[in-house]
Amino acid sequence: MAWERKISRTIRVRNDPKIGLLAHLLTSIAEMGGTVGDIQLLTETSRSIIRDITVYGDDAEHVEKIVKVMGSNPGTRILEVRDEVLELHQKGKIAIRSRYAIDSMATLRRVYTPGVAEVCLKIAKDPSLARLYTSTSHMIAIVTDGTAVLGLGDIGPLAAMPVMEGKAMLMESLVGLSGMPILLNTRDPDEIVAAVAAISPTFAAIQLEDISAPRCFEIEERLQKLLDKPVMHDDQHGTAVVSVAALTNACRQTNTNIKKTIIGQIGLGAAGNAIARMLMKLTGNPVYGADLSSDAIKRLEAAGGKGSSLNEIMARCDIVIATTGASGLIKPEMVHKGQIILALSNPNPEIDPDVAMEHGAAFAADGKMVNNVLGFPGIFRGTVDANAPRITHEMLFAAAQTIADMTPPGELVPNPLDKAVHRAVARAVAMTAMEQGIARAEYVPYADE
Amino acid sequence: MAWERKISRTIRVRNDPKIGLLAHLLTSIAEMGGTVGDIQLLTETSRSIIRDITVYGDDAEHVEKIVKVMGSNPGTRILEVRDEVLELHQKGKIAIRSRYAIDSMATLRRVYTPGVAEVCLKIAKDPSLARLYTSTSHMIAIVTDGTAVLGLGDIGPLAAMPVMEGKAMLMESLVGLSGMPILLNTRDPDEIVAAVAAISPTFAAIQLEDISAPRCFEIEERLQKLLDKPVMHDDQHGTAVVSVAALTNACRQTNTNIKKTIIGQIGLGAAGNAIARMLMKLTGNPVYGADLSSDAIKRLEAAGGKGSSLNEIMARCDIVIATTGASGLIKPEMVHKGQIILALSNPNPEIDPDVAMEHGAAFAADGKMVNNVLGFPGIFRGTVDANAPRITHEMLFAAAQTIADMTPPGELVPNPLDKAVHRAVARAVAMTAMEQGIARAEYVPYADE
Repeated sequence: MAWERKISRTIRVRNDPKIGLLAHLLTSIAEMGGTVGDIQLLTETSRSIIRDITVYGDDAEHVEKIVKVMGSNPGTRILEVRDEVLELHQKGKIAIRSRYAIDSMATLRRVYTPGVAEVCLKIAKDPSLARLYTSTSHMIAIVTDGTAVLGLGDIGPLAAMPVMEGKAMLMESLVGLSGMPILLNTRDPDEIVAAVAAISPTFAAIQLEDISAPRCFEIEERLQKLLDKPVMHDDQHGTAVVSVAALTNACRQTNTNIKKTIIGQIGLGAAGNAIARMLMKLTGNPVYGADLSSDAIKRLEAAGGKGSSLNEIMARCDIVIATTGASGLIKPEMVHKGQIILALSNPNPEIDPDVAMEHGAAFAADGKMVNNVLGFPGIFRGTVDANAPRITHEMLFAAAQTIADMTPPGELVPNPLDKAVHRAVARAVAMTAMEQGIARAEYVPYADE
Repeated sequence: MAWERKISRTIRVRNDPKIGLLAHLLTSIAEMGGTVGDIQLLTETSRSIIRDITVYGDDAEHVEKIVKVMGSNPGTRILEVRDEVLELHQKGKIAIRSRYAIDSMATLRRVYTPGVAEVCLKIAKDPSLARLYTSTSHMIAIVTDGTAVLGLGDIGPLAAMPVMEGKAMLMESLVGLSGMPILLNTRDPDEIVAAVAAISPTFAAIQLEDISAPRCFEIEERLQKLLDKPVMHDDQHGTAVVSVAALTNACRQTNTNIKKTIIGQIGLGAAGNAIARMLMKLTGNPVYGADLSSDAIKRLEAAGGKGSSLNEIMARCDIVIATTGASGLIKPEMVHKGQIILALSNPNPEIDPDVAMEHGAAFAADGKMVNNVLGFPGIFRGTVDANAPRITHEMLFAAAQTIADMTPPGELVPNPLDKAVHRAVARAVAMTAMEQGIARAEYVPYADE
């Protein structure tokens, strides 16, 4: 599938106006192992047809070879090779904008001195009014030290910025929040906690992002204790919510009662640990966990889980979730009949779903579709709209349940760009906060801007 | 004048369609000591005329009285009293927005995983590319602890947010930068320096704002030493730039050669200290300084100035600048013939300019027009566009000179909403950085977005 490929280029191609040339071109791309994204027809005359074809490959060299072969097709000429990913990143992907124009001195005097003084004094008298009269009500800090970015690992905060900006874009596009990347040039948990706490008045909530385990556990816990506002490490809970939603659908499709199954979690990093904990809360049963780190196993056991091994989990468990980053870790012969397997590591899963199915699995999926874009926007929007001081397990369950319920028949999860899903998640999260009595605001569904 | 008033309300008024009623209405407002801003004609029929009239007063009670008197005019009915300042502040004044829409899965895959990985790796390999491919190139932190906000003093960070958002709006509207308020819930210089340094990779530059003296001096100095990017406390240098520009114009209008004058600075807080230092660099002569704090006098003397007193400065100096916050501090009888007096405290100056002129001053002005909105946007834009690591005295002079040069004849400073002025300031600042050899980028004038 196109989205597992790391590199794309957009290639402008001129063809003679002969029937079948595009088919030939696509065949030659496929023969090179390339995949095709958008094809856009730019001009068509009696003498030529010009198209933009987006091609995906494994790396830059691979795409270069594909382009060469494309150009060698008869009646075909390559006009241009563009890197649209880089073009889209020029000057960054986000900006801080005024919500309306300062188009006169009258407006300037209202939004700045002297008019602003009245608003300042109101808030000084009653700080809760800041939620009404400042942007703090919709500002979410997206905090990273760049130590565990995507599948790339420890690339540092600056190199993590394009990912943080991507998160901020999604926050705005999907639920209208203002996500602000905060890049930290320290990895020391004490310093991270101190810095985030120091700047916290600016924000309605703190999203921790791509911070490596085990520091991420401590940092999240300490910040949540310190602050009277929600703190969530997305790689833990956002991923867990979407994984549990996918597993819920897998169970539905196989008529499995999750509470009667034995569940194994292979890999107990940020995501694996959170998935195991969420499933234990959901089912009331212990989850079996395997990890190379004995500390990670101890952490799971402290939460009520059972230390185990890869082999034992594959042999005993009805449901197996793997989040190890180790491609091909699960051998086909380990699979047993009727197992549900979610091999979630990206870009390459612990076992290919098709292979798992061939070896008897009742259901198998990889991590391509389990995109945590489905989780964090609605979770934060709902929490902030309810003005809840933290994100509870119950709020996370409500999010997972909503995502599962809004999944089209036959799919594992909904389309991550479906705004109705995010609106429903936000609503479910806010309602749950109200039911739990931790909402500090009348819930007003957010308006599109 | 309207802008010295702290409170405004917009009043919807229905008049009978008789000639002279509006004039009567305005007379009654004037008689109550109120001033009038925009008047907007909403509907006019044969039976009635409806207008929105914006009225300014000293405080809420004052405006209430004005409204009452307005309603007692014959043929006049008050339909509605609106607080447009508060209305404009609802939900805050800024938001973080995507620079383009995520409208398809293809775009999602380019701006987020997997496409983004390629950009991350490029930056990890060459961090200077972050300037090209992330928003860090246009993000400016607007940092405050809320200890010295406008004329309001120590109201705390949250209550300072409407001012910080105002600055951010101006950054965007006037020069296209992304100003991000950062509210600090600590006042400890060590903790402030640590927090700002920790989050600094996010930003191209740091603007310190409304931090009280003397902590502001230490915090700015320590941060600038620590960081390889510009740090500027606006209440010092932004204000100094605009004040020096105004003084330059005052000298031009009075045919005064500033280098041949004796200059006195009354009040050596953040602004006064910076103005005195800038004028000493400009003229090569010591500036006489007066302040209630002996530490403040010592600070000036360490920078080459001379400790003095209010009386001595008023008696000896050709040019007097006052930034004390003490309304009416300069008595009319202290003024001597031919003096240039800038009494800059807001909202009430140390001496009324008209009174100073009556008592022999050659030129007098107050702080209403010396708005630092004229300084910081262009200063930061030019510095960031030249990728200079700091803002030098020479760059500040270039800004002041440009503001003075772009002032319409007879005025003290230009209109702060004139974008051409800000563009010229940015250009002058960037060019000066290049001349000084501290620019680290080819200067590309910024484009309007």
